[in-house]
Amino acid sequence: MTTTGADVDRLWSRPAHQIVTGDDYVESLRGRDLKVHYLGERVPEVVDHPVVRPSVNAVARTFDLAVDEPELATAQSSLSGRRVNRFLHVAESADDLVMQNKMQRRLGQDTGTCFQRCVGMDAFNALFSVTFDCDATHGTPYHERLRSFLRYCQEENLVVGGAMTDPKGDRSRTPSQQHDPDLFTHVVERRDGGVVIRGAKAHQTGCLNSHWIIVMPTMRLGEEDRDYAIVAAIPVEHPGLTYVLGRQSCDTRAMEGGDIDVGNARFAGQEALIIIDDVFVPDEYVFLDGEHELAATLVERFTAFHRRSYVCKTGLGDVLIGAAAQLADWQGVGGASHVRDKLVEMAHLNETVYGAGIASSHEATQLPAGNFQNDALLANVCKHNVTRFPFELARLAQDIAGGLVATLPSERDFADPDVGPLLDKYFSVGPDVPTEHRVRMLRLVENMTMGRNAVGYLTESMHGAGSPQAQRVQIARDVDLVADMGLARRLAGIDRDPPDD
Amino acid sequence: MTTTGADVDRLWSRPAHQIVTGDDYVESLRGRDLKVHYLGERVPEVVDHPVVRPSVNAVARTFDLAVDEPELATAQSSLSGRRVNRFLHVAESADDLVMQNKMQRRLGQDTGTCFQRCVGMDAFNALFSVTFDCDATHGTPYHERLRSFLRYCQEENLVVGGAMTDPKGDRSRTPSQQHDPDLFTHVVERRDGGVVIRGAKAHQTGCLNSHWIIVMPTMRLGEEDRDYAIVAAIPVEHPGLTYVLGRQSCDTRAMEGGDIDVGNARFAGQEALIIIDDVFVPDEYVFLDGEHELAATLVERFTAFHRRSYVCKTGLGDVLIGAAAQLADWQGVGGASHVRDKLVEMAHLNETVYGAGIASSHEATQLPAGNFQNDALLANVCKHNVTRFPFELARLAQDIAGGLVATLPSERDFADPDVGPLLDKYFSVGPDVPTEHRVRMLRLVENMTMGRNAVGYLTESMHGAGSPQAQRVQIARDVDLVADMGLARRLAGIDRDPPDD
Amino acid sequence: MTTTGADVDRLWSRPAHQIVTGDDYVESLRGRDLKVHYLGERVPEVVDHPVVRPSVNAVARTFDLAVDEPELATAQSSLSGRRVNRFLHVAESADDLVMQNKMQRRLGQDTGTCFQRCVGMDAFNALFSVTFDCDATHGTPYHERLRSFLRYCQEENLVVGGAMTDPKGDRSRTPSQQHDPDLFTHVVERRDGGVVIRGAKAHQTGCLNSHWIIVMPTMRLGEEDRDYAIVAAIPVEHPGLTYVLGRQSCDTRAMEGGDIDVGNARFAGQEALIIIDDVFVPDEYVFLDGEHELAATLVERFTAFHRRSYVCKTGLGDVLIGAAAQLADWQGVGGASHVRDKLVEMAHLNETVYGAGIASSHEATQLPAGNFQNDALLANVCKHNVTRFPFELARLAQDIAGGLVATLPSERDFADPDVGPLLDKYFSVGPDVPTEHRVRMLRLVENMTMGRNAVGYLTESMHGAGSPQAQRVQIARDVDLVADMGLARRLAGIDRDPPDD
Amino acid sequence: MTTTGADVDRLWSRPAHQIVTGDDYVESLRGRDLKVHYLGERVPEVVDHPVVRPSVNAVARTFDLAVDEPELATAQSSLSGRRVNRFLHVAESADDLVMQNKMQRRLGQDTGTCFQRCVGMDAFNALFSVTFDCDATHGTPYHERLRSFLRYCQEENLVVGGAMTDPKGDRSRTPSQQHDPDLFTHVVERRDGGVVIRGAKAHQTGCLNSHWIIVMPTMRLGEEDRDYAIVAAIPVEHPGLTYVLGRQSCDTRAMEGGDIDVGNARFAGQEALIIIDDVFVPDEYVFLDGEHELAATLVERFTAFHRRSYVCKTGLGDVLIGAAAQLADWQGVGGASHVRDKLVEMAHLNETVYGAGIASSHEATQLPAGNFQNDALLANVCKHNVTRFPFELARLAQDIAGGLVATLPSERDFADPDVGPLLDKYFSVGPDVPTEHRVRMLRLVENMTMGRNAVGYLTESMHGAGSPQAQRVQIARDVDLVADMGLARRLAGIDRDPPDD
Repeated sequence: MTTTGADVDRLWSRPAHQIVTGDDYVESLRGRDLKVHYLGERVPEVVDHPVVRPSVNAVARTFDLAVDEPELATAQSSLSGRRVNRFLHVAESADDLVMQNKMQRRLGQDTGTCFQRCVGMDAFNALFSVTFDCDATHGTPYHERLRSFLRYCQEENLVVGGAMTDPKGDRSRTPSQQHDPDLFTHVVERRDGGVVIRGAKAHQTGCLNSHWIIVMPTMRLGEEDRDYAIVAAIPVEHPGLTYVLGRQSCDTRAMEGGDIDVGNARFAGQEALIIIDDVFVPDEYVFLDGEHELAATLVERFTAFHRRSYVCKTGLGDVLIGAAAQLADWQGVGGASHVRDKLVEMAHLNETVYGAGIASSHEATQLPAGNFQNDALLANVCKHNVTRFPFELARLAQDIAGGLVATLPSERDFADPDVGPLLDKYFSVGPDVPTEHRVRMLRLVENMTMGRNAVGYLTESMHGAGSPQAQRVQIARDVDLVADMGLARRLAGIDRDPPDD
Repeated sequence: MTTTGADVDRLWSRPAHQIVTGDDYVESLRGRDLKVHYLGERVPEVVDHPVVRPSVNAVARTFDLAVDEPELATAQSSLSGRRVNRFLHVAESADDLVMQNKMQRRLGQDTGTCFQRCVGMDAFNALFSVTFDCDATHGTPYHERLRSFLRYCQEENLVVGGAMTDPKGDRSRTPSQQHDPDLFTHVVERRDGGVVIRGAKAHQTGCLNSHWIIVMPTMRLGEEDRDYAIVAAIPVEHPGLTYVLGRQSCDTRAMEGGDIDVGNARFAGQEALIIIDDVFVPDEYVFLDGEHELAATLVERFTAFHRRSYVCKTGLGDVLIGAAAQLADWQGVGGASHVRDKLVEMAHLNETVYGAGIASSHEATQLPAGNFQNDALLANVCKHNVTRFPFELARLAQDIAGGLVATLPSERDFADPDVGPLLDKYFSVGPDVPTEHRVRMLRLVENMTMGRNAVGYLTESMHGAGSPQAQRVQIARDVDLVADMGLARRLAGIDRDPPDD
Repeated sequence: MTTTGADVDRLWSRPAHQIVTGDDYVESLRGRDLKVHYLGERVPEVVDHPVVRPSVNAVARTFDLAVDEPELATAQSSLSGRRVNRFLHVAESADDLVMQNKMQRRLGQDTGTCFQRCVGMDAFNALFSVTFDCDATHGTPYHERLRSFLRYCQEENLVVGGAMTDPKGDRSRTPSQQHDPDLFTHVVERRDGGVVIRGAKAHQTGCLNSHWIIVMPTMRLGEEDRDYAIVAAIPVEHPGLTYVLGRQSCDTRAMEGGDIDVGNARFAGQEALIIIDDVFVPDEYVFLDGEHELAATLVERFTAFHRRSYVCKTGLGDVLIGAAAQLADWQGVGGASHVRDKLVEMAHLNETVYGAGIASSHEATQLPAGNFQNDALLANVCKHNVTRFPFELARLAQDIAGGLVATLPSERDFADPDVGPLLDKYFSVGPDVPTEHRVRMLRLVENMTMGRNAVGYLTESMHGAGSPQAQRVQIARDVDLVADMGLARRLAGIDRDPPDD
Repeated sequence: MTTTGADVDRLWSRPAHQIVTGDDYVESLRGRDLKVHYLGERVPEVVDHPVVRPSVNAVARTFDLAVDEPELATAQSSLSGRRVNRFLHVAESADDLVMQNKMQRRLGQDTGTCFQRCVGMDAFNALFSVTFDCDATHGTPYHERLRSFLRYCQEENLVVGGAMTDPKGDRSRTPSQQHDPDLFTHVVERRDGGVVIRGAKAHQTGCLNSHWIIVMPTMRLGEEDRDYAIVAAIPVEHPGLTYVLGRQSCDTRAMEGGDIDVGNARFAGQEALIIIDDVFVPDEYVFLDGEHELAATLVERFTAFHRRSYVCKTGLGDVLIGAAAQLADWQGVGGASHVRDKLVEMAHLNETVYGAGIASSHEATQLPAGNFQNDALLANVCKHNVTRFPFELARLAQDIAGGLVATLPSERDFADPDVGPLLDKYFSVGPDVPTEHRVRMLRLVENMTMGRNAVGYLTESMHGAGSPQAQRVQIARDVDLVADMGLARRLAGIDRDPPDD
C-alpha cells in the first residue's frame, strides 16, 4: 500500500532550506517525524537522541568546514554557477577529485569517524555520466532530471545519501532467483507519473542525517532482473520509509551520561536498515528504470569513486597514530626504539592507503558527460589496502597503548569518592600527566579499535564500498594479463618483435 | 592501616570447601562480601551480577570438565597422592604440560572466552621450582610452605589466581624510582609472624572468581628494589583488598536482559584492578621476601609457562572459524573458493600457534625441584604469534561474516511486533535458516572481534603474559647468535674447523 | 627395450658395501658409470665433478654425524636388531620422529644446504605402514619384501632416494588423460618375475648420490590409472636410468677454481631429472602394483612425514641468521635497534617453523604396522610456513647484509695485483676484520638468498614435498569445520546442548 | 698522483656526440679505453663484452623509446629551448614528474631490468635546486655552472650517472672518523682552477654506460666533514677512474653462448665499484665544495626524487606477472582459483607501489629555483613498499611457476641429440605449447627471482636509493606526530578547542 496525500506531496516539492552552518543543518533535521527504531523503541527526535547525535555532529562538521575553509570544502559548480559544498559537486577536473580526498582526510582527522556524506557525493558523480550515457543510447530524460535535482540540492545545501546495498539474501542467487523478490529493491508497479518501489537497503550510512536518499542497484543485472534496475531519489521523511538503527559496539555508553567512556563524545557514525514500503516516486526523481545493462556501469563508476573515498580512513589513522604516540609519551616509552618503529609502520601503512587514493584521483579522465572519472584500478587498490591496513594500525595502537585499553574501570568509578582517588593514584604515570587525560586517551583508542568507531574504522573499512573480494574481482578485470604475458614472451625470446629490434 | 581481628584470622585458617562440580564452585563464591566496584556502584553479590556471572560460568566449566573428562582435566598428583584438577597440578612430566595445552584448547572451544585459571596454574608451577632453588641457595623455608598451601588447594579444589602485573606508572623507571612507591606492590612493614603488603595489581583475570590470589613481582629487580621482591598468598575475601572491575567493550549488554545481543550469553572473561591496602600476610603464606635476584628467574619461568598457555586462544580460534564457516554456508558462499581459502588461512594460523605451544610443552626438561619446565624459546614464539594471528583471524572472520556484523539491529527490534517481522523478512537468507540463527551467529562474531570477548581474544592476546616486545626481548636472549655466527663462519670458509674435517 | 644381462643381474643381488664414514660413502659412489648429463656433456665420474661434489659432501656429512654423535644420528632398529643410521630407521616411537627433526636441523646447520637423505627416510616410513595395510586388505606380499630390502639397506648403510614427483604435463589432467602416457611413471609390461617401468621423475634430490631409488606414485589415482600405481626399488646404476642434472643459480661458479665466490664451497644440493627407460624390476623389489586406491594413502602418509622434515630449513635459517648477525657486527651496526629487531624477527619465524614441525612429530600415533605416524595437520602447517618464512628470512638477511651482497667483485679481482689492494682498501670495515672475511660472509648470504643454495632454501622450500596449495588442500581436509561450526552454534545459543548444561 | 695532459684536457672540452638512436648511443661508448676489471681481467671493450652488453642495451632502449614515443620519453626544456630526452630534463611541472614515472614503468616493461639512467636524472633535478639555494645563501656560482653543463648534456643527448654511495667502512662512524679517510669520497687538494678528489663509489649503476658521472656526498655532514661535501662531474673515461664490475648471480651464463639459460638475453643491469684516484676536476664542473650543511638537503631532495623513481620496478612486476600468468596457462592451471588469486595479489601489490609513486609526483611543489620537487613522504612510502613487495611478487611467481624454475636442465642438454628429445618429451605440457617456450619462460622467472635481474628486481629494490631503515627515518621525520597527537587530544576531550566549537 503506497502512501499518498498532501503531506507526501509537500515532500516532493523541493522546499527551501538555505543551510549554511552546522547549526543550520542540525535545525533542518528537526521535526521530521521519521519512523526510526532503535533498541525496541521508536525514536522521537533523532537529533536529540544521545546515540544518534554524535553522528549528526559529524555531518554538521562538513558544513562548518565549508565555512571555515572554503578552498578545501567547497567548489565552484558550473551547474548552478555558484560555489557549493564540495560534497554536492560533480568533479570538473582531476584536481576536483584530489580535493575531495584532501577534504575527506581532513574531516577524518576532525571527527575520528565516518562523516557520512561521501556516498551521496560519489553517487551524484557516478549518476552524472551514467544518466548521460543512458540518454545517449536510449533517448531517456534522466540526465536533465538529475541535473535539475542536483541544482536544487546545491542551492539548498542538502545532505543526500546514496542507498546501494540490498540485503541480498542468499548470495549465490541473483535478485530474481531469491526466495523473496523483495530482498533486492525493485519496482513493483509502474503508474502514470511515476513508479512504486519496494525493498530495503542495509548498512545505510548516515541515512537519518540526510534530506534525500538516492536508491541504486547494487550489482550487475541481467534482462530477467530489469525491475531491479531502478535509480530514484526519495525524501528521507517519506512516510513509506522505516529506519532501524544498527547497534554499534558500545553504543549505549552514549546513554550513560558521561563523556569519557564513550571515547569520542562528539562524533560517531551511523548505519541503519531502510525499509521501503511501496513508495511512489514521481518521474522527475527517477534516474534509471529498467535499463539493466547500465547497472554494472553504474556500480563500477560509483565504486571507482567510492573506493578511493576511503582515503577518509587515513584521517582516522592520523588520529589513532596521534593517540598511540601520545600514550607512549605519557607512559614513558615514547623514546623506545620499538615504539618509534611501530609508529613509523602505522604512518607508512596509512600513507600507502593515501598514495593509492590520491593517485587514483589525479589519474582521472574526462567522460563524454563532461565530468571526471578517477582511475578504477588504483581506486580498487586503495580500498583493498583499506581492508587490511586499518586492522594492522588498530593492532599496533593496542600494542602501544597497553592492556589498560581493555581493562580500564568506568568513569563513574573514577568519580566515586571512595575508589576514585585510588584509581587516580594507581593509574598515574607521573605528576605531569593528569590521570584523566591518560584515561581519555585510552578510551579513544578503545573507541576506534573495539568500540563505537571501530565499526567505521574497521568493519566499514572491510565491507564499505564492497568487500575485499569485490576489489579483487575488479582488479582482475582491470589488470591486462594478456598484455603482461606479451611483455614476458618478448623478453623470454619467444615473441620475436622486441621493442628495440 | 592493616585489618585484623577474628574475621580475618578465619580467612587464613584454611577452611574446607570440598568443591567437585561447577555448581559447588559457584556456591563456594557466594556470601563473601567482597569490596567490588563496577560502574560507580558496589556490587552486592558477584555471583548474581549479570556482567560478572558469565565469567563465573567460564571458571565453573573447568570443574565440570574435570568431572566429565577426568583424563583431560585432572591429573595424579604425587604431592597429595590423589587425582586433582589439572589447574592445581604441578607438572611431573612433559606429558603433563602437553595435557595442560589440550585442556586449554578444549576449554577455549567450550567457552569461547578466557576461563581464568591458567595464571594460578602457571604460578604454582613456576613457584614450585623457584622456591626450591631459593631454599637451596638461601636456606629459606619457602618450598615446604608452598607445598603445604598447594596441598590444601588441591584437597579443597580451589581456584587460585596469580597476580603479577603492577600498574607500573612511568615505564621508563624502576619500582623504587617511581614518583609513588606504591605503583609496584611492595612490603611496607615486616613484623613478627608476617609482612604487610601495599600496592595494586592491574588487569587481574578472574580475581573475583578465585579463592586465593598469589601476588608476585612483575619484573627483574635490583638490590634497591628488594622490598618489591615479595611473593605471598592472600584470601580473595580479605577486607584489605578492593576490586574495581574493568569495563569491557559492550559489557552492559549483559544487563539488558536478552541473550542474543551479548553474542555469547553464558561465558565471558573478567579483569579487575586489585588494590592491596596494607594487608598483613602471615609467614606461612610468604613464598619469597627480599630475594630480589630471584624475581627475574620467577618472571622467566612463569612467563615460559604462561606464554605457552595462550594455546587456549586456539580453542577460541576454532569457535571463530566455525562461526565464519557457518555464516558462509548459510549466506550461500560456503563453496566460494575465496571463502574456503580464507577459512584455510584461519585454520593454518590457528594451528601455527598451537604447534609452537605444544612443542614448547613437549620439549620440557626436569628441574632440580623435580617438576618439568617447558621450553622457553618456543613458549615465547607461541605467544608472539598470539599477538598477531588472532587479529588476522578476527579480520578474516569479519570479512566472511559480512558488514552486518556491525550494523545489525538489536534483539528488541527483532522482537518488536511492528518492525520485527520486517527485519525477519529482510535479513532472511532463505527458508532453511531461521533469521534468528543468522543473527545469533553474527552476534557471536561481533562478540569475539569487537565485543566483550574481543577483550580476551584480541587485547589479552596482545598484552597478557607480556606485551609483544617482552617476547622479543626474551627471544633475543634465548637465541644463540654467537653459535649461529660460528655456523656461518665455518660454512663461509673463515673458521677452519668445519664439522666434517 | 629393457636392459638385461649379467651386469644388470649383479645390480639386483644386494652386494655388500659396509659403509661407515663419509669417506667410505664417497668411495662407494665411484666407478658406477652412471649416465649423467650436465651442460650438454656426459659426466664421467660424478664424485669428481666440481659441481656435483659439494652435494656428495652434504650426504657424506650424514655418515660422519652418525659416527660423531650416534645418539643424534643413529637409532636402534628392531628390524635388524642393530643401531642403524637414523635415515634408514622406521620410527618406533614419537621420540624417534622428534629425533629425526633434531638431526635434520643439525645437518642443516652443518651444511647450509639440502643433505638429500630425508626423502628416502620418509619413503621407508610411509611404505612400512602402507605395505602392511595393503597386505592386510589384498593379501599381497609387499610388507615382507620391504622389510627385507630395508634390512639390507640398514646392514650396508646405503643411501636410498625416494622418487615421487612425475613431470605431470598438463596439470588439469590425470595421468591417463595426458597426451603422452609416459608423463607419469607407469608399468608398461608385466612379466613373470617382475614388471617393466617407464616414465620420468623430476626434481630428484640427491639421486646421483644414492645407491637405490624407490619410485612411488605422486598423486591420488583412480581405477583407470591403476598402471600408475607402482612402487618399486631400482639400483641407481641401472643402465635403464638416465640422469639430467638441473642447473642451479650460479652453478658454474664451482667450476671456476676458487672457494670464495661459491659462497659455500663444501656443500650444496642436487636435483636431476631421472628418465626411466623400460626398466625391468624383479618382484622382490616391487612394493605396490596396481592397488590404486592406496596411492592417496601413500601420498598422504609420505607427505605427512616429509612436510615435517622441512624442519631442516630451520638449520639453514640458523646459518643465515648467523651470517646476517656477523655482518652487522663487522659493519658496525650490530647494536642498532632496527638490526637487532630484524634478527629477532628472523629467529621468531625460524622457530615458528620448528615448533610446528616437532609438534607434529611429538603428536605421533602408532599404526597397525607398529610404526609411528606423525600428526598430518601440523606437518602441513609446518611446511606451509616453510613456503613463506624462509623467503622473509632471506629478505631480511639481504636487508642487514647490505647491497654489496649483489655487487661484490669476483675473488679473482680481489686476487689481482693491481685492483686487489684497492678492493681490499675500499671494502674494509676496519682494522679488526679482514676484508676477505667480510667478502666470504657476503658470498654466503648471496649463496643462500640468490645463489646455489637458494634453490634449496627458497625454491625447494616452496615446492618440495608439495607446493603451497597442496598443503592448503590437506589442511582443509584435516580441519574439522563441521565440529567447529557446532562449537559456534552452541555458544551462539542455537544448539541447545551446551557443554555445561 | 693526478693524471694530466692533453688527453685528459680533451675530456673536459665537451666534445660533440649528437646521439639520437640507441645505435648512436652504443657507438658513442666504443673506444674509450676504460679501465674496467671483471673476473680478474681487464675488459678490452665494454660494448662487446657479453656480460656488459645487455646492460648497454637497456640504456640504448631509453634512446629508442624517445624516438618511438617522444611524448612519453622526451620533454620540452626551457633550459635549452628544445625537446630533450626526459632523463635529461629538470621537471618544470608536476606533470613532468608524473611522466618520468610513466616512462620508467614502460622501460621496466620493455627491458625487465634496470635501465640505469634514473640516478642521473634525479641528480640533475636535485642539484638544480640545491645549487640555486646554495648560491642564494653563499654567493657561490654553482647553479649557473650546472645549467651550462646540463645544457651541454641535453644538446649531445648524453648519459650521466649520479654517484652517491660511498663504501662507508664502519657504519657507526662518520666520514672523518673512519680508520681510512678515503672510505668516503673527498677533496684531498684545492688548486687554482679546480679540486683533486679521491675515494670510491660503490654499487654504481650503469657507470660504464655513462658519459659522465656526478659524484655527490652520501649523507648528512658536519663541519668536520666539510671536505666530503663535494659535488663534481667527471668524464667516465677519465684515466684516474678505475672500475671493477660486481658479479651478479648467474652472470657468466651470458658467456656461455646460448640465449635461453640467461633468461633475458637482451637486457640486464650493471653495478660497479668506481675508484677515484686523485682526479683533478676543473672548477666549472664543481657544483658544491665544502658547504657541508647542504649535504643533507641534497641527499633529501635526491632521495625524494629517486625513491619515487623505483616505480620502474612496477614495470618489472608487470613482466613477472605476465610470466607467471603465461606459465599457469600453459601448465593447465590458468583457471585454478588459487592461481588467479595469486595473480591478483601480485597485481595489487604492484599497483600499490605505483600508486604511492605517482601520487608523490603529482603532489609536487615548485621550489624557488623554479623546478618541481615531488612529495617526500609519499616517495619514501613508495620506496619502502618496494623493499617489500617485489620480494612477495617473486615468491608468488615461483609458487605459480613450479619447482622447475630451479631444476631445469641447461639449454645445451636440450640441444643434445641423445637427451634433448627426452627432455622435450618429459617437459612437454601438451601439443600446443613448444617445450622450448615453457623453458624460456621458466628461465625468465629464474632470471628475475634468483638470477641476474634479481639483483635489480630484489636486492636493488631493497638497497637502492637507501635501505629500508633510511626510509623509516625519513618517514619519522616527515610525519607530524605532534599534530596527530593534537588531533587525538581534541577528540578525547582533553584539548578544549575542538574544530567545531
